Amino acid sequence: MEKLDMLYQGKAKKMYATDDPDVLWVEYMNQATAFNGEKKEQIAGKGNLNNHITSVIFDLLKARGVDSHFIKRISDTEQLVKKMDMFPLEIIMRNTAAGSFAKRYGVEEGTPLKKPILEFCLKSDPLNDPFINDDGIVALGLATEEELAEISRIARAVNDGLKDIFSKIDVQLVDFKIEEGKTSDGTILLADEITPDTCRLWDLKDKSGKIEHLDKDLFRRDLGNIIPAYEEIYGRLLKLAEAEGIERAE
Amino acid sequence: MEKLDMLYQGKAKKMYATDDPDVLWVEYMNQATAFNGEKKEQIAGKGNLNNHITSVIFDLLKARGVDSHFIKRISDTEQLVKKMDMFPLEIIMRNTAAGSFAKRYGVEEGTPLKKPILEFCLKSDPLNDPFINDDGIVALGLATEEELAEISRIARAVNDGLKDIFSKIDVQLVDFKIEEGKTSDGTILLADEITPDTCRLWDLKDKSGKIEHLDKDLFRRDLGNIIPAYEEIYGRLLKLAEAEGIERAE
Ligand SMILES: Nc1ncnc2c1ncn2[C@@H]1O[C@H](COP(=O)(O)OP(=O)(O)OP(=O)(O)O)[C@@H](O)[C@H]1O
Ligand SMILES: Nc1ncnc2c1ncn2[C@@H]1O[C@H](COP(=O)(O)OP(=O)(O)OP(=O)(O)O)[C@@H](O)[C@H]1O
Ligand SMILES: [Mg+2]
Ligand SMILES: [Mg+2]
Repeated sequence: MEKLDMLYQGKAKKMYATDDPDVLWVEYMNQATAFNGEKKEQIAGKGNLNNHITSVIFDLLKARGVDSHFIKRISDTEQLVKKMDMFPLEIIMRNTAAGSFAKRYGVEEGTPLKKPILEFCLKSDPLNDPFINDDGIVALGLATEEELAEISRIARAVNDGLKDIFSKIDVQLVDFKIEEGKTSDGTILLADEITPDTCRLWDLKDKSGKIEHLDKDLFRRDLGNIIPAYEEIYGRLLKLAEAEGIERAE
Repeated sequence: MEKLDMLYQGKAKKMYATDDPDVLWVEYMNQATAFNGEKKEQIAGKGNLNNHITSVIFDLLKARGVDSHFIKRISDTEQLVKKMDMFPLEIIMRNTAAGSFAKRYGVEEGTPLKKPILEFCLKSDPLNDPFINDDGIVALGLATEEELAEISRIARAVNDGLKDIFSKIDVQLVDFKIEEGKTSDGTILLADEITPDTCRLWDLKDKSGKIEHLDKDLFRRDLGNIIPAYEEIYGRLLKLAEAEGIERAE
């Protein structure tokens, strides 16, 4: 596989073309951002950790019947993925009230939700990723009714898979954000990344009574260094993958 | 029917108890407000017009098979309604992009939508009526899944009825906000009011090419006096009701 031109650079990853039109070469960067890019920092080791973490999560999800764009990890900071036509949506699943949800509805962070909540935001930096509902998505032509049903089914399957994975490593999966896209043959798949940058993960091993964040809220809220937390998540996930004897794509 | 204690006073109406525990006495006030009460003014004649307009609209809807809380108009500014247990929701239907929707998604006001959009906001002045989706409503316990299905069915039926009514009087129904509640026997019904305060109504008789507002945007955006516009709407609705020979509850 040959690495060709950079196609685009996001806030966390660089995406390169390859000699296969259906394959992208992804490079995970050390940049951390929050609040739509307003807060920005270079954190040594972050790209490496996130590349490893998302790879093992995609493998663990695959073993649970949830497919993704992930092909294989090819270096500490690089992986190959299926090139997708992305839906311009941030797809958010919430199991516990936190973050913008808690603030928006005046609910205390940590309040359990009666059922998992699926939310969508329109991906648009100038519009500040506004919240959008199903009718809005279809009316604005962001996805068809049928595509949206499949996008939602996958999001709920990812939540079921991740809840199982994180419960096995003593971590509370509070919420997470994913992206999905369509492959060249029209199949809708989980894409982008699943890392402590895109999930809220609270340590259940901690018995202090206060929330022990193992995710980007450490950076967002200036609560401490993310690296030891991300290393802790990676260590536990790796042990789980080994215990389960799952096939690793690397 | 006897008028008893005032139960609560909103921004547009005063609600009184009556000697029938299932009936409320509503008084329409002259107060106009916008931006969550930040902008406020007394406009002589507004209460009278809105009381008349919502009454004829409820009658026109009833003739189209859409029931409501409306019992009858009893004076220029007063009406009797069924007392309801209200859902804390603003129920918004949009046929054309305008207002907060247009702004939120960067769509030009006036853009037709591929399908009518149903939106909900949590009624909460301190939280500024935040947008909420179906999962959020159920997860926060604001309505059950079954109630929400019925609330949505009614909202779409109201839209169908109103689109028919307004098209017959040469008015474009851009969007509107309703409220719904449950009667003491658990029936879900359209409640509150349907007036130019709660609808966006654009005059189709106007051929100038620019939007001729016949609704509260005149007040919100300082475009002119609302009274002649509300009178125009009332006059056209009354003529329609007479032409249709529908039964008036007054
Ligand atoms: N399989 C894929 N095929 C094509 N594009 C993808 C794929 N997976 C992820 N992307 C896109 O790669 C881009 C870069 O990712 P990154 O996380 O750095 O973006 P970002 O800073 O979050 O910006 P954005 O606001 O676009 O998400 C994103 O736009 C993402 O949607
Ligand atoms: N049939 C009904 N039974 C009980 N309450 C009703 C009924 N119809 C409307 N209401 C309620 O009457 C109140 C007064 O109406 P008004 O329009 O003045 O309120 P408002 O200023 O818009 O305030 P709010 O933010 O509560 O809607 C509202 O809270 C509304 O929900
Ligand atoms: Mg990203
Ligand atoms: Mg009101």
